[in-house]
Amino acid sequence: MAKTEIATLGEFGLIKHLTQDIELKNKSSQLGVGDDCAVLSQTEGMETLVTTDMLMEGVHFDLTYIPFKHLGYKSAQVNFSDIYAMGGMPKQITVSIAVDKRFGVEDLNDFYEGLKTACDQHGVDIVGGDTCSSRTGLAISITCIGEVEAGKAIRRDGAKETDIICVSGDLGAAYMGFQLLEREKQVYYKQIENAKTDAERLAISQPDFAGKEYLLERQMKPEARRDIITKLKEMNITPTSMMDISDGLSSELMHICTQSHVGCRVYEERIPIDYQTAVMAEEMNMNLTTAALNGGEDYELLFTVPITEHDKIEQMEGVKEIGYITKESLGKCLVTRDGNEFELKAQGWNPIKDL
Amino acid sequence: MAKTEIATLGEFGLIKHLTQDIELKNKSSQLGVGDDCAVLSQTEGMETLVTTDMLMEGVHFDLTYIPFKHLGYKSAQVNFSDIYAMGGMPKQITVSIAVDKRFGVEDLNDFYEGLKTACDQHGVDIVGGDTCSSRTGLAISITCIGEVEAGKAIRRDGAKETDIICVSGDLGAAYMGFQLLEREKQVYYKQIENAKTDAERLAISQPDFAGKEYLLERQMKPEARRDIITKLKEMNITPTSMMDISDGLSSELMHICTQSHVGCRVYEERIPIDYQTAVMAEEMNMNLTTAALNGGEDYELLFTVPITEHDKIEQMEGVKEIGYITKESLGKCLVTRDGNEFELKAQGWNPIKDL
Repeated sequence: MAKTEIATLGEFGLIKHLTQDIELKNKSSQLGVGDDCAVLSQTEGMETLVTTDMLMEGVHFDLTYIPFKHLGYKSAQVNFSDIYAMGGMPKQITVSIAVDKRFGVEDLNDFYEGLKTACDQHGVDIVGGDTCSSRTGLAISITCIGEVEAGKAIRRDGAKETDIICVSGDLGAAYMGFQLLEREKQVYYKQIENAKTDAERLAISQPDFAGKEYLLERQMKPEARRDIITKLKEMNITPTSMMDISDGLSSELMHICTQSHVGCRVYEERIPIDYQTAVMAEEMNMNLTTAALNGGEDYELLFTVPITEHDKIEQMEGVKEIGYITKESLGKCLVTRDGNEFELKAQGWNPIKDL
Repeated sequence: MAKTEIATLGEFGLIKHLTQDIELKNKSSQLGVGDDCAVLSQTEGMETLVTTDMLMEGVHFDLTYIPFKHLGYKSAQVNFSDIYAMGGMPKQITVSIAVDKRFGVEDLNDFYEGLKTACDQHGVDIVGGDTCSSRTGLAISITCIGEVEAGKAIRRDGAKETDIICVSGDLGAAYMGFQLLEREKQVYYKQIENAKTDAERLAISQPDFAGKEYLLERQMKPEARRDIITKLKEMNITPTSMMDISDGLSSELMHICTQSHVGCRVYEERIPIDYQTAVMAEEMNMNLTTAALNGGEDYELLFTVPITEHDKIEQMEGVKEIGYITKESLGKCLVTRDGNEFELKAQGWNPIKDL
């Protein structure tokens, strides 16, 4: 596709180009892009939630396989997910992106298209940001502002002994999607390396992902679980603690336990796993439970509810009870299918492991 | 100095290390670092301001001469400056930083020390953020949340014909500081290149910045003008438009004129310039007015007030009237010392010029 050099638009031309068709949807978005700050009005009885995420090329994403549109979509969703994880609703985002000379206006268009799609789905306004050049690869930083009823933010430190531990959706699929994409990338590189003629290069086949679409979708197009927050409210269930699963179930469970000063008991057989995830783990000779516990990027919700809510949770589609909260002294324990008990370890995604 | 590898602390160890001594100062900061989101309570009758800035190594800063402590300080100040530019008060920031293997825990300590110093001065709480690795140089993204009385945010689009144009402090010094640092860097590199023996290398002198301290301070340690906002309130002066001067006076004036649908008439002889700035421009054989108009990074406030406020402004220390607002059809005009008139052009800092 043609590449239009970004500099040709000028800084303000570029901002205008990317943001001119934005219509503010929320009453609270008083002033959006175009001044020193965005101005947001406050809703009586509500508190403001703020979360921010930085995504670096080569660390958090690989442009070899994630298209710009998906990257924009995913960057927005992972921020919304943090707002839902407090029981709130996302309302506004600011978007900063630093790009280098490899990229053109078309790439930014695609990125913004993905962003806007995600924002439209979740009723969120883009109210500000920063577009600048980078000497060194793509960097994305998004901040999301949300609202929650005053005093009702669901924190990580409220889990109590005997509470039931719940998880939405299924786990490990995003990680298996990542493994699949990495494998096919290596295969492709090897073919390129071995091809000696143009004919051979042309004959290199695209990977066949048939039957594995769900894994790719989970990796490249995660959906923040607004529906779960809405359902919990409808059913009048108030979790005692909640967070989203971005680094892996083990790691997140340990945060809840540490901050709530409790232990937990989680049953391997109850961890929700999709069929495609299981098939892929088998194919790649990987341990399925490890993928589900430590894979990360699921963006599902992990929460605890009082045991008295058990009957209601049972009726909730797409939510599974995977264990319960114990006294702190009992530790953080995984009970395997064959009845063995292991201490949970956080071996999930570590954003600073290379440093 | 010893370098402690960042990975040795682990992600959560690192966050704890950097943020453990943070005490939340503002009543509105209900929950800070350590959960999915920060929680902020709202003050009745106030609106929320949000601004964000991304700073990329090699584009916005050069680690050859800016120490980490100053980088932290400056990163915070430039965000506060945007909040003041709306007439508001900054209350919270989130801080994301992506670092590569060159950097150690000590560097992050210094960065946070600078951040915290700036935050303490301006009564701001650090309530969240993200620390991750980068494959490709340092990236910093800060979002600042502030408060302003509902309906009282000072925008760029309110300037009216006959309004007086005012500027705080003086202009061009940060730019001349940058030129000075760049020149000395080149001198140093040349000496390193020419030195053939260890003795010669040891004899390379550090640059002598005596008499030029103000320029360096303006470049490396900018101060957001909280004092001006406070004074304007005390004196009961309400600007009709305002913004901070980050890209250069010309560029910012053009924003105000374009968004307010007005013209302007600015007098060269009235543009405030410090003695050191003038000396340095002379020494470097650069046009002083160009430096003051287009230099950028001054982080002073540019604002317009009704002509009826003239007497009050005259009494305000550190604020200068540089011209007035005209009909849009009269254009944006600079009147030089010798009485010539030129059309103002935005030739300031362009963050995407390399793309």
